[in-house]
Amino acid sequence: MIHLNAIEHHAFDNYCYPLDKDNLIINLRTGKEVEKVFLLWGDPFDWGLSNNASNYTWQYTSVEVTEKKELQNHLWWTIKLQPKFKRCKYFFNIKAGDDSYIYGESGLVCEEDFHRAEDEYYPFIFPWMNQNDICNPPKWAENTVWYQIFPSRFRKGPIADKKEGLSPWPDRDTVVTNEQKFGGNLGGITEKMSYLADLGITGIYLNPVNCSTTQHKYDTTDYFDIDPDFGTKEDMKKLVAEAHKYGIRIMLDGVFNHSGWEFFAWQDVLKNRQNSKYADWYMVNDWSFPGKPGHNADEGKFFAFAYCDYMPKFNTNNPEVRKYLIDACEFWVKEYDIDALRLDVANEVCHDFCRELQTRMRGLKNDFYIIGEIWHNSIPWLRGNEFDAIMNYPLQNAIYNFALDKERTSHSFEQDVNRCLTDYFQQTQKVMFNLMDSHDTMRLVTKAGSRNKALQMLAVMFAMPGSPCIYYGTEVFLEGGKDPDCRRCMPWKDIESGKCDEEMDIIKQLIYLRKTNTAMSSYEMSFEHIEGKDRLLCLKKNDGENNILIIVNFSGKQEEVSNLLDGTKVLFKNGFNAQTRTLDSDGILIAQSGF
Amino acid sequence: MIHLNAIEHHAFDNYCYPLDKDNLIINLRTGKEVEKVFLLWGDPFDWGLSNNASNYTWQYTSVEVTEKKELQNHLWWTIKLQPKFKRCKYFFNIKAGDDSYIYGESGLVCEEDFHRAEDEYYPFIFPWMNQNDICNPPKWAENTVWYQIFPSRFRKGPIADKKEGLSPWPDRDTVVTNEQKFGGNLGGITEKMSYLADLGITGIYLNPVNCSTTQHKYDTTDYFDIDPDFGTKEDMKKLVAEAHKYGIRIMLDGVFNHSGWEFFAWQDVLKNRQNSKYADWYMVNDWSFPGKPGHNADEGKFFAFAYCDYMPKFNTNNPEVRKYLIDACEFWVKEYDIDALRLDVANEVCHDFCRELQTRMRGLKNDFYIIGEIWHNSIPWLRGNEFDAIMNYPLQNAIYNFALDKERTSHSFEQDVNRCLTDYFQQTQKVMFNLMDSHDTMRLVTKAGSRNKALQMLAVMFAMPGSPCIYYGTEVFLEGGKDPDCRRCMPWKDIESGKCDEEMDIIKQLIYLRKTNTAMSSYEMSFEHIEGKDRLLCLKKNDGENNILIIVNFSGKQEEVSNLLDGTKVLFKNGFNAQTRTLDSDGILIAQSGF
Repeated sequence: MIHLNAIEHHAFDNYCYPLDKDNLIINLRTGKEVEKVFLLWGDPFDWGLSNNASNYTWQYTSVEVTEKKELQNHLWWTIKLQPKFKRCKYFFNIKAGDDSYIYGESGLVCEEDFHRAEDEYYPFIFPWMNQNDICNPPKWAENTVWYQIFPSRFRKGPIADKKEGLSPWPDRDTVVTNEQKFGGNLGGITEKMSYLADLGITGIYLNPVNCSTTQHKYDTTDYFDIDPDFGTKEDMKKLVAEAHKYGIRIMLDGVFNHSGWEFFAWQDVLKNRQNSKYADWYMVNDWSFPGKPGHNADEGKFFAFAYCDYMPKFNTNNPEVRKYLIDACEFWVKEYDIDALRLDVANEVCHDFCRELQTRMRGLKNDFYIIGEIWHNSIPWLRGNEFDAIMNYPLQNAIYNFALDKERTSHSFEQDVNRCLTDYFQQTQKVMFNLMDSHDTMRLVTKAGSRNKALQMLAVMFAMPGSPCIYYGTEVFLEGGKDPDCRRCMPWKDIESGKCDEEMDIIKQLIYLRKTNTAMSSYEMSFEHIEGKDRLLCLKKNDGENNILIIVNFSGKQEEVSNLLDGTKVLFKNGFNAQTRTLDSDGILIAQSGF
Repeated sequence: MIHLNAIEHHAFDNYCYPLDKDNLIINLRTGKEVEKVFLLWGDPFDWGLSNNASNYTWQYTSVEVTEKKELQNHLWWTIKLQPKFKRCKYFFNIKAGDDSYIYGESGLVCEEDFHRAEDEYYPFIFPWMNQNDICNPPKWAENTVWYQIFPSRFRKGPIADKKEGLSPWPDRDTVVTNEQKFGGNLGGITEKMSYLADLGITGIYLNPVNCSTTQHKYDTTDYFDIDPDFGTKEDMKKLVAEAHKYGIRIMLDGVFNHSGWEFFAWQDVLKNRQNSKYADWYMVNDWSFPGKPGHNADEGKFFAFAYCDYMPKFNTNNPEVRKYLIDACEFWVKEYDIDALRLDVANEVCHDFCRELQTRMRGLKNDFYIIGEIWHNSIPWLRGNEFDAIMNYPLQNAIYNFALDKERTSHSFEQDVNRCLTDYFQQTQKVMFNLMDSHDTMRLVTKAGSRNKALQMLAVMFAMPGSPCIYYGTEVFLEGGKDPDCRRCMPWKDIESGKCDEEMDIIKQLIYLRKTNTAMSSYEMSFEHIEGKDRLLCLKKNDGENNILIIVNFSGKQEEVSNLLDGTKVLFKNGFNAQTRTLDSDGILIAQSGF
């Protein structure tokens, strides 16, 4: 019996969208008992307006939908069509056992009843594949390997030596506070560009660099200038120019949800209150609030980021605010030549802001890449005219849950990954910003508990569509708990002395593999679940060009994998014994198949 | 046992949206076996960034969700919240029997497992109720009673007498062709403004009035001028001014999907082909196409509306085209002072067009109303920044199906109505453009088969949220089959002789009731299904102010309804015997309850 209440489709968002100007993707979700799905499709007008419209019969084709993915409680069926006239009318025919239902927009009806009164049922319609409505993220992002830098803790460049009040650069084991200044700066990053290029990095995501009163710089006080802690506009230009020489793109962090307390407009509001010409730049509910940071936000006197008084919330509903902030972004492109933007607290600014930002940035660079910091399902921002991608915390979560929770199985992991992969358009999946750690989370190796396990998770992330990001120091498995401990200083002494060569070498291998083997980033994949080995991930990827096998052992014990390896050639390994064909309890093997 | 695969929610679109600046609506869809739903909700940051974030506990409230609607295969649960900080984090707790599941963005988990590892599960987040993102359709549309006029067939005004080549104005039984000219014009409409006001009309939707080569005028050849068949710009101004005197608003029909063959830009394309400066205003695939209408569209040589060569499709992806057409709309507002626009083939123009149109129209009149001709689910156009509403064919379909298909029951009708009511935001439901017939469908009375049945369907439509529209002539039950027969001439001789007074009187009563009793248009309603009387519609509506009961008998036989009528006062009736308290086989009764 078909579970009618499990069936879902609508002719928009992730269920139905153009992949490009010719191809239309149609997805259907059903219960797991469904055995076959057919799409009855044709042109909405294929009853000939030119003919006699009064006794028409719609002309359609029935085609079987064969591609499917398994979700937690559903199957996700996918078909790709090429409608000649860029428009499509369709019903689904859903079958299990003797049941056969027709599914259209007005609901489900058994096949027999449908034919009794076809006129009573509404089809699904995808009306027209307009170029402007097609989500078209920049191709370069698909193949980028990112590196996230928290500038104050990455590298003390030349000018920092002259600064006062700096703590000495600590080693990797030293716990730090958010307030400590160590002198990391832009010059330091520029100095290490060849190091990053050598690692294989092709994109740098920089945490905020504009003026601010804190070390994390998320309370911007001047959007048009570089924080003196980090350098000057000239230093920023040099950084970008140097990066571009190495083919490395630069993404800045834009904080547009709120300003810092010292930002001129907020200062004017503090002074002139409701008479300030910036009164409507913020969201003040009670003008009598005390003029210094305290519990104003807690008490709802004005809105702020979270409950942080020192980060008063911008009113991005106000066009003046949008113009001011997007002018700043334009300045960063024109002045520094940046290639991408990451928006902090991206889900709280209004959608007009996001749309206007994309329009103006694409006007300057037609392949400008914009991502949002959004931790939850982001369809409303990823329809094509706002962001290209988000920071992929749901995928991070899926990988952590499987790797660290022994109750999870490769089967539940498949369902979690498939949820992530089906949440957005396929073209969006290919440019998602994938990450295992950041300045906002515990560091990978600390959460993983061991270097091998951390490497396992990185390898899984590198085998997913979307562009992977390495948080500075993760290439040498830098430790760190939650914020502020995840913001420790980069251990250059260890790195430069060659002490980290071994771990860096394996990360380089992984990056190299990702960049040279196209199957690593492909959207298509299949999971193999092996009886009795439900903590062994076995993932097959084939993009037509390459055919690879990824085996990651989360079982906690050695696993013999020889039967999986027939006709394969090892591409990457850690904890794999080639003679016994066994994987260590925390081993990884990536192999080319088809030999 | 809970059907996990029937459960659906996402924190956007019709599942979660701000109703206004203070109220957030959250809807959940489940299977019908679910007994109780609780919302666990709180502020996303209510673990105090100002406190110690490292060992936080999220603070939330559990509140029972009690409001629900029944759909074909689901229950639709609704709750309204007032988040103090305009943001909301939530899980659902879903219960049936001994089952208790927690539902968040990463899926469903039994309550026990959830508490074992809360960190592994993602909540739903509604990040911020931004003013610009709130869908805010014009209030006036909620209470408007529309009248649709197909100008060439409504009324021959003074100037038409001087025209040549006109057929004489026929009576109501005369079948017409699309090509016949009868001289209906703007002056005729202006002349009959008091007639419409007397009927109770407060809005007129005019089919196209701009220059065109056909009588339906959907092949525009000049967007800035009135078709000489209909009059002049001056006539249009007078029409609007006269309507406004009576408090009647005017909606024009905008044809932006395609132009007519004679439109200057298309003519330039025909002449200069790919060298035309308008080459990119259209969608030509093969420049060698023959320069006169034929089978070009069929053969894909250029794209057109349906396969109609004489309606070549605009490329609205081109900003020049958008500017040209929206400039025309601005002209109509500035020159004629129109209040609303209906877009023809609205689903095939690109979304940028729809957004820019709304921005510019609202810039001129901040309560400008825009609706689209879209026959299918229109969420992508109804998120707040494109259209206010669509022509509500799905509701029309639901009413027809119930009224005319004897296999349908009041229960299946409830499910169909609830599908319509839950497809979009509540504020959108209140301004939907409801209609039982139009220039594109068979006429109501012809489809219904009798006047009483037609009146029944009108009464049901008048008892729904959204603004009802009467197609010209339907107030006197003008007959007509499919296009072109649904475009017959208005039978003024019969009307003016008093022959139609009886039917018009009852329509007036219905309009009056709709305008004076607020419960008629309220969103809230409940269906009562009476054992053994499954073709008797019994609808209760209570908006706090009024409490009404609507009984419509589609059973085909007389029904005794006395037990439903205790403590009620009749507001409207047709085919109701007050003494026997019976409804005729095609009767209607609307009564005020609570006496």
